[in-house]
Amino acid sequence: MAGNSFGQIFRITTFGESHGAGIGVVIDGCPAGLEIDEQYIQQQLDRRRPGQSAIVTQRKEPDNFQILSGVFEGISTGSPLALFIPNTNQKPKDYSHIKDLYRPSHADMTYQEKYGRRDHRGGGRASARETAARVAAGAIARLLLQQADITIQAGVTQVGQLKLEQAIEKIQWAEAANNPVRCPNAQLAAEMESLIQEIKKSGDTVGGKISCYITNCPVGLGDPVFDKLHADLGKAMLSINAVKGFEYGSGFGSVEMRGSEHNDKWVAGAAQKQTATNHSGGIQGGISNGMPIYFNVAFKPVATIMQDQASISKDGEAATVSGKGRHDPCVVPRAVPIVEAMAALVLADHYLRDKVVRL
Amino acid sequence: MAGNSFGQIFRITTFGESHGAGIGVVIDGCPAGLEIDEQYIQQQLDRRRPGQSAIVTQRKEPDNFQILSGVFEGISTGSPLALFIPNTNQKPKDYSHIKDLYRPSHADMTYQEKYGRRDHRGGGRASARETAARVAAGAIARLLLQQADITIQAGVTQVGQLKLEQAIEKIQWAEAANNPVRCPNAQLAAEMESLIQEIKKSGDTVGGKISCYITNCPVGLGDPVFDKLHADLGKAMLSINAVKGFEYGSGFGSVEMRGSEHNDKWVAGAAQKQTATNHSGGIQGGISNGMPIYFNVAFKPVATIMQDQASISKDGEAATVSGKGRHDPCVVPRAVPIVEAMAALVLADHYLRDKVVRL
Amino acid sequence: MAGNSFGQIFRITTFGESHGAGIGVVIDGCPAGLEIDEQYIQQQLDRRRPGQSAIVTQRKEPDNFQILSGVFEGISTGSPLALFIPNTNQKPKDYSHIKDLYRPSHADMTYQEKYGRRDHRGGGRASARETAARVAAGAIARLLLQQADITIQAGVTQVGQLKLEQAIEKIQWAEAANNPVRCPNAQLAAEMESLIQEIKKSGDTVGGKISCYITNCPVGLGDPVFDKLHADLGKAMLSINAVKGFEYGSGFGSVEMRGSEHNDKWVAGAAQKQTATNHSGGIQGGISNGMPIYFNVAFKPVATIMQDQASISKDGEAATVSGKGRHDPCVVPRAVPIVEAMAALVLADHYLRDKVVRL
Amino acid sequence: MAGNSFGQIFRITTFGESHGAGIGVVIDGCPAGLEIDEQYIQQQLDRRRPGQSAIVTQRKEPDNFQILSGVFEGISTGSPLALFIPNTNQKPKDYSHIKDLYRPSHADMTYQEKYGRRDHRGGGRASARETAARVAAGAIARLLLQQADITIQAGVTQVGQLKLEQAIEKIQWAEAANNPVRCPNAQLAAEMESLIQEIKKSGDTVGGKISCYITNCPVGLGDPVFDKLHADLGKAMLSINAVKGFEYGSGFGSVEMRGSEHNDKWVAGAAQKQTATNHSGGIQGGISNGMPIYFNVAFKPVATIMQDQASISKDGEAATVSGKGRHDPCVVPRAVPIVEAMAALVLADHYLRDKVVRL
Repeated sequence: MAGNSFGQIFRITTFGESHGAGIGVVIDGCPAGLEIDEQYIQQQLDRRRPGQSAIVTQRKEPDNFQILSGVFEGISTGSPLALFIPNTNQKPKDYSHIKDLYRPSHADMTYQEKYGRRDHRGGGRASARETAARVAAGAIARLLLQQADITIQAGVTQVGQLKLEQAIEKIQWAEAANNPVRCPNAQLAAEMESLIQEIKKSGDTVGGKISCYITNCPVGLGDPVFDKLHADLGKAMLSINAVKGFEYGSGFGSVEMRGSEHNDKWVAGAAQKQTATNHSGGIQGGISNGMPIYFNVAFKPVATIMQDQASISKDGEAATVSGKGRHDPCVVPRAVPIVEAMAALVLADHYLRDKVVRL
Repeated sequence: MAGNSFGQIFRITTFGESHGAGIGVVIDGCPAGLEIDEQYIQQQLDRRRPGQSAIVTQRKEPDNFQILSGVFEGISTGSPLALFIPNTNQKPKDYSHIKDLYRPSHADMTYQEKYGRRDHRGGGRASARETAARVAAGAIARLLLQQADITIQAGVTQVGQLKLEQAIEKIQWAEAANNPVRCPNAQLAAEMESLIQEIKKSGDTVGGKISCYITNCPVGLGDPVFDKLHADLGKAMLSINAVKGFEYGSGFGSVEMRGSEHNDKWVAGAAQKQTATNHSGGIQGGISNGMPIYFNVAFKPVATIMQDQASISKDGEAATVSGKGRHDPCVVPRAVPIVEAMAALVLADHYLRDKVVRL
Repeated sequence: MAGNSFGQIFRITTFGESHGAGIGVVIDGCPAGLEIDEQYIQQQLDRRRPGQSAIVTQRKEPDNFQILSGVFEGISTGSPLALFIPNTNQKPKDYSHIKDLYRPSHADMTYQEKYGRRDHRGGGRASARETAARVAAGAIARLLLQQADITIQAGVTQVGQLKLEQAIEKIQWAEAANNPVRCPNAQLAAEMESLIQEIKKSGDTVGGKISCYITNCPVGLGDPVFDKLHADLGKAMLSINAVKGFEYGSGFGSVEMRGSEHNDKWVAGAAQKQTATNHSGGIQGGISNGMPIYFNVAFKPVATIMQDQASISKDGEAATVSGKGRHDPCVVPRAVPIVEAMAALVLADHYLRDKVVRL
Repeated sequence: MAGNSFGQIFRITTFGESHGAGIGVVIDGCPAGLEIDEQYIQQQLDRRRPGQSAIVTQRKEPDNFQILSGVFEGISTGSPLALFIPNTNQKPKDYSHIKDLYRPSHADMTYQEKYGRRDHRGGGRASARETAARVAAGAIARLLLQQADITIQAGVTQVGQLKLEQAIEKIQWAEAANNPVRCPNAQLAAEMESLIQEIKKSGDTVGGKISCYITNCPVGLGDPVFDKLHADLGKAMLSINAVKGFEYGSGFGSVEMRGSEHNDKWVAGAAQKQTATNHSGGIQGGISNGMPIYFNVAFKPVATIMQDQASISKDGEAATVSGKGRHDPCVVPRAVPIVEAMAALVLADHYLRDKVVRL
């Protein structure tokens, strides 16, 4: 109800603020019997954590997690799984200068007016630090999906005007692990890295796009009408900080197409039902059809820039917000594991939901 | 849980199939004391119904509704409001030829395999006829929002390659009511109408885009983290049949922008807090900031075309699907009231949710 | 949220008022593939309907139902199942004398003050007529439970001071079908019938108790902590009109027992795990243990009596409420199918919920 | 869905096991602006904690809590409030002897068979230690209710056959704080204390009853049909470990009453609407009517006794369970704050829910 939970059967509730004790998540509905590979969870957190490369924020947060409940002898018990990531490198003073200011394109004003107060330190609850909890929970969702051989891969396919021009099914996703931008194309990655470095030097930031590709998803995930698989994926992605758009399959490009070219023809006589093209993006009528699922997520440029900006105080008076602290010049490299985590949470939930819809 | 409900406090559950007794909706959580203007509800249904112009499906369905509960002497009582729209012009035989066939880019296969059976007549539950229930419920949500002077307007801004090139805040939304395409620009509307007619004649279909603009939304609607206002709007739109993408504010265009140009500067000394630009699309940190909210929705070309298509039977054997029945060559003109209805349902829910978040 | 839904996976939402168009229910989450035996549903409704014997209200309501959606060729499709029972024998004028009066021990005042208005005719939404929807939905839940051989039987075990003194496991539940009181003991039933007749003649009403016995429930239904099986059964029963108490297993009697006598000893070497006694009432730690589940439900005497009562008007002034209309002198005979229906709804929900708790 | 959450708007999710890292709770939906009095929370926890008197378990657990999130400068921010109570005095070895045994009337067998495994140490998730989280969350709910002057008081009104014979409205609830039994009658408390001591010496346990009395509750809390205020109170109480029954107002006694004596007559001309008697227990049609709310809760004797008991192993073979560890001879003294906490959680939730039901 208050917006901090996600999922129906595999349901997570996150808590914590940027500069409080830490960030945590309770997973209620993780099936008993799942081996909880702590190393894997930490790996995922390491992909998101600050300070991992020269093109991301230089904050030093190790993001080590603790399991507070729900695991016994390394196996999930069916009880709520609570994970906690203590905050260790907070510098609240970095934020004292904005205590009574509203930064442009931040959540300062809306939180203040909605709740009548706000924790101004590092954005409080609005901080992207909250996504650490999503990555931790998403890692557990992925452990569950591994049981069904479902694979989720994401990568950066655009930064500014540098855009990967490649058919989605041709992309070498594993390549994204080999460069700090997480672009699945080595040459483009190098260009993106240069661009980000350059923008960083100018005290500015830049937007980006992440594409995600899911293979081996069985037929049948997703529910009709409101909880269509792509509707839940869309909500999941749009709930990530800085996201401005979502499209799946043919996406916005479908607007210019004719039905006769857009329709995905079924291949006759195939062992597993499949289509010749995949404009549907692996989802028909909101339900997975066994083809690869893919979608794009648009991220705006980070709002915190290292430049002085004219702004206002809480009382509406003119004020200057100067850029301080340690921030990302481009959010997409660190957002790749977040996109994968949110996709995993949606799929894990629908994987379980699908088990009760027929006799 | 099974995907037929939407909203938390203002919560709807729809039911019904294309060729069953009818389509209905139960609204649980509509506050008591709301005047239920039946004429207004019917007007909204009339905007969605088939047969309203030459460029939409020629099925003759009056879509008259009945109120089954929740209203006493014209006022909502606080009890569940149930509305029912009987089906009157079904031609199930129009569908007997596809009983054992899987149409391309339809939900035939996924429903069949998920549930082990399906109502093949007119798509059953997957039919866009279900959206009549959304429009009826959305009309009631709009009656509620009128109490707060919130205005929702949508229009067709693209059909195929015909695209409205106009700054969003300059669009004359009322103009959309004056033409069958529902495009808020008379000249472009005429071109779109010709295009749709031409495509219809060729037995084909075409995609389109709808833009929506919400004014007078108070500061504070939307919840943090997962239920951000734009995340709920995105899910709402993506749950509409044929939608492939959603973007709000600067949307996918933000990918190519710098933070220094994207940031919306606060206007100092304004009576009501406002920003000089509105790339944020009226939402910051997932919470409305008092500026106009706007977003775009991409619709694919309708999958049912009036041409023979190679396809397969349920058993995977080659088969031909021939186009029969009465279908829309382009879905966007009739989808405008659906987009508005879903937006109203999201806003009504968050309008009520906002009432309990602070002492 | 607004109190008209029950269950998580097998979830019902009821709507309708005593004197509106009718009473209905939407079941969202009924698995596809269930044969919907309409005769069985009608039978259950007939057990609840008015006018079925001399000791219940003499209103003539046939309570015939229509299926509005979710069934195709006699089988559930996985889409929402909507059922509707039109009101046919309303006499709203029977209630015009209480339009501005608050009847003693009725919901008149609380509805009026909570919602600022109320449908005074027959109690509106507060009418026990709403339970017809529960019985219809419960019949479908029972069809689902029959697949698992789970049996639910209830009977009247007390009316006023006439009490069945028999060990719960010795009761011949089928006997309850042979008399209008629905007491599973022929001789006591006759005495109860006389008592009810006598009380009816005096224009008064009397309370009663229903006991319910569930056999063949598999081990494992119920969730820990808040959704213990008995907690959900308790809520289900307490939500029925006129219920004042619920106890399961040893119930209130356990207060006077020692642990050494109360503990249910496990039988060593049994093929299926079982206990020598069953003070646990078939539930341990909130989860069914395979033993019979049983519980008692206390019903107060019906508030509407055929006598003049001193009361007040809406404005607080003295007024006389006179007994009019056709009402039950004792509610328990007609409440037996309601108790069974609510028990079935709880079990069907937990039967499905149990399918997703372990790998 | 998995049973670890309670409430709709003021919603809690508890986590943790008896012998894991600790016990915690996330409250999502606590309004912003509430002063979080940490001393008060600790006081409530102290009323529940072990070792507080000679008649309860002698385990030494300080039950100190930490606030992990949701509070800034002593005031709730509207973000999720997470509280954590580390486990400090676990003796898992106390439980190694029951690793493969099923104790009588415990949750050992049902957890093992439901989940395929269990944390046998101290009952794991089934341990009453989980209720510490409820008391902490309930304390915050009470801080919210204090804003509306709502008062909740509970006391022990029966232990074994020692029963408080006093009209509910005459009870001096404050007296319960003056003795370790928490009985609101000094003389009876002394007798109860002796009885418990005697039973403890014999290695046995005994049941008890707690009564709860709520004053100053405004008219209008509770929702119709399924979420009646007493139905939610009933579920809340039945979800507490060892509870076997719940009755409110006239309760099971109403079964023997006539309508003419049971009906609560309205007092004409009163400033605030009130009834001469209160068999309704302050709730009519599921909605509070402004009169005191009261109910009784039955607790069975604790299953762990300090005696050898014949039982079975996991494999069904005969085994002896011997009583070890430090346990309560009677659970009711420590359960009083739990009953109050659960009542507070129900009321806080309905207090907020009531804010959105009318224009």
